[in-house]
Amino acid sequence: MMSQVIATYLIHDEKDLEKKAEGIALGLTVGSWTDLPLLEQEQLRKHKGVVVSVTQIEESERVNEYLGKRVKRGLVRIAYPSVNFSADLPAILTTVFGKLSLDGEVKLIDMTFSDELKKQFPGPCFGIDGIREKVGVYDRPLLMSIFKGVIGRDLHYLSEQLKQQALGGVDLVKDDEILFENDLTPFEKRIAAGKTVLNDIYEKTGKKILYAVNLTGKTFELKEKAKRAVELDADVLLFNVFAYGLDVLQGLREDEDISIPIMAHPAISGALTPSEFYGIKSPLLLGKLLRLAGADFALFPSPYGSVALDRGEALGIAAELTKEDEQLKRAFPVPSAGIHPRLVPLLIRDFGIDSVINAGGGVHGHPDGAEGGGKAFCAAIDAVLAGRPLQDAAKDSEALQKAIALWGAHEVTV
Amino acid sequence: MMSQVIATYLIHDEKDLEKKAEGIALGLTVGSWTDLPLLEQEQLRKHKGVVVSVTQIEESERVNEYLGKRVKRGLVRIAYPSVNFSADLPAILTTVFGKLSLDGEVKLIDMTFSDELKKQFPGPCFGIDGIREKVGVYDRPLLMSIFKGVIGRDLHYLSEQLKQQALGGVDLVKDDEILFENDLTPFEKRIAAGKTVLNDIYEKTGKKILYAVNLTGKTFELKEKAKRAVELDADVLLFNVFAYGLDVLQGLREDEDISIPIMAHPAISGALTPSEFYGIKSPLLLGKLLRLAGADFALFPSPYGSVALDRGEALGIAAELTKEDEQLKRAFPVPSAGIHPRLVPLLIRDFGIDSVINAGGGVHGHPDGAEGGGKAFCAAIDAVLAGRPLQDAAKDSEALQKAIALWGAHEVTV
Repeated sequence: MMSQVIATYLIHDEKDLEKKAEGIALGLTVGSWTDLPLLEQEQLRKHKGVVVSVTQIEESERVNEYLGKRVKRGLVRIAYPSVNFSADLPAILTTVFGKLSLDGEVKLIDMTFSDELKKQFPGPCFGIDGIREKVGVYDRPLLMSIFKGVIGRDLHYLSEQLKQQALGGVDLVKDDEILFENDLTPFEKRIAAGKTVLNDIYEKTGKKILYAVNLTGKTFELKEKAKRAVELDADVLLFNVFAYGLDVLQGLREDEDISIPIMAHPAISGALTPSEFYGIKSPLLLGKLLRLAGADFALFPSPYGSVALDRGEALGIAAELTKEDEQLKRAFPVPSAGIHPRLVPLLIRDFGIDSVINAGGGVHGHPDGAEGGGKAFCAAIDAVLAGRPLQDAAKDSEALQKAIALWGAHEVTV
Repeated sequence: MMSQVIATYLIHDEKDLEKKAEGIALGLTVGSWTDLPLLEQEQLRKHKGVVVSVTQIEESERVNEYLGKRVKRGLVRIAYPSVNFSADLPAILTTVFGKLSLDGEVKLIDMTFSDELKKQFPGPCFGIDGIREKVGVYDRPLLMSIFKGVIGRDLHYLSEQLKQQALGGVDLVKDDEILFENDLTPFEKRIAAGKTVLNDIYEKTGKKILYAVNLTGKTFELKEKAKRAVELDADVLLFNVFAYGLDVLQGLREDEDISIPIMAHPAISGALTPSEFYGIKSPLLLGKLLRLAGADFALFPSPYGSVALDRGEALGIAAELTKEDEQLKRAFPVPSAGIHPRLVPLLIRDFGIDSVINAGGGVHGHPDGAEGGGKAFCAAIDAVLAGRPLQDAAKDSEALQKAIALWGAHEVTV
């Protein structure tokens, strides 16, 4: 099979969808075609975009009324030959959705990379299995907590907060994504302070905990900063990939001197994904493309919290991150935002054990503080995996009992 | 005044807008506030986000019906202290629209940078005045044409097409944005071939024409490639900034060894801008932020073509690019897509002489080819600036006459 990428679009158009599709396939590749002499057509054939399928879907009165015009809706698949672009995401995205993104109501739904093209992308460096080895946890979801309210606070405050979280039994702690380079808690000093706290915990308890430090600053200074983090033995890099670009993530992943896991944060991605008419569908952007570019973890809104994603979209992201692939390692889905211990049954039902349970307020808001919050989550995870109702397990865990008293309990058959 | 950025959002919410605004201002800065001891409030005050204003706007039945819920709509302005972030766009955008972009129907409308913060950004290196000096044109809009159907073609084909365009009298010629690194017309050879053609024209006619070559490839290889372009005496870099990131543009701009103008292409920006509910408003993204980051030219869809932007949005972009600013040079607005000679009166009425008239099909589709197309545009520009109707001017220009016969003529009082 020719090396290519097949893009799937949801298009809305007043006119003939087949014609629209053909116009896209030509316009994004060889341009005008039918007027060309046959010889030139022959020469250009391997460069020509090809309409793979046009599937009309039901018209929607709600959409027609909102748009103020009657539109046909269709899923269109178009194949773009790899010979037209260099094997990097900026070139591929510009080809399949560059000027097209500006051309009316069109949303990029999916992209299918031929094996040869996919080989050009690194995928996660560690992936789920590699991360599990780092923390020594193989049979349950990982548990992560988030620093809270750290802007304007000093290293002592951070260290104390980290210690409380670590004592609760979490596997990972991540920076707040809005913590940037600052005088009170600069990047390198955060790494060093984190090491001190977590090494101490490790020596006392044997528990290995990873700290994801926020890699920020100007694009062309990121690599140097990341290498400095590696020298300082940082565990994981948190990265606001959509504030930079998918290819920046890939560049960090592909640098052999930046040999630690990367955790992709979804900040700003909501500018691209939620519209019914425009942008890029979540499972493609936050799932497939993040994995392809090299994220070991991908955060996204869970379907349950105050900042919630449609359940199908969230499950779609997780499926893209974790489905078997001969070339790419699997990445950890991290359904986030508004996660409390009572949601653990739902999280494990929906995302399985190959996921990270990630909580901020659900850890720090516990009546016994972050340590109690962590313990409540650990007890909830154990209970769900043992098939015990949370209410029942709470009899053996004071922390879980208090969490349920505060946040209630969802009972779900896993 | 404290150094800060004030973000303006359009929010849609079922509940109290004031409360929502206060939640945003705290959530994106210091977190919980009212529960803090007074002493800590005092310490954190300079980090706290502040709601500047909440202006409720009319409810919309159309919006309510589409969303399936009754929402209040409001313009909310929130000030974020600069002390919270490093002075780079990834940090600033993550602060003002990071997790917030994922939180329901919220669109980022505008950002106002305090002078102290704005000083951290370069703006255009050359700007309108610097570009005018390069081409020696001071009293009219510049004219640009675009290579067409060059995928799968060789350098000879490109050179011939460039020559035809140049002979028509254009000031600039730009690569197609979907032309990437490829065996037939590699980057460095395109630059060299372009030089040969355009130097020849210069020697024969004295007309200085700039060729904007498409800078593509992996992010962390762009600087080296751009420097090679400068060594080869390239005129202008075309750049698909939204396939990379605004900060990548800024990084190129700030590198002293990359001392040529940068032309920003809007490819992929349509994934961010068109929704009523989500994303980033065009004048901010394609106007203010591109100028701040250092684009000398910004392309965007004109209000007239097949791929059209709302007229207010297009004018808003141009205003952001060209309004006087003590710190930043002005950048050229390039309203694009579907531009024919007959649209010149409209273009000059709407965008004035400090703009670039940019045409692809409107140049190449002329009955006498690209040379005729360019001449028709030149005649149309002269006519409009002389206050002559196109139909009248066509008496003195065969090229314009043929263009009008093909595409018609708009008459507009300038």
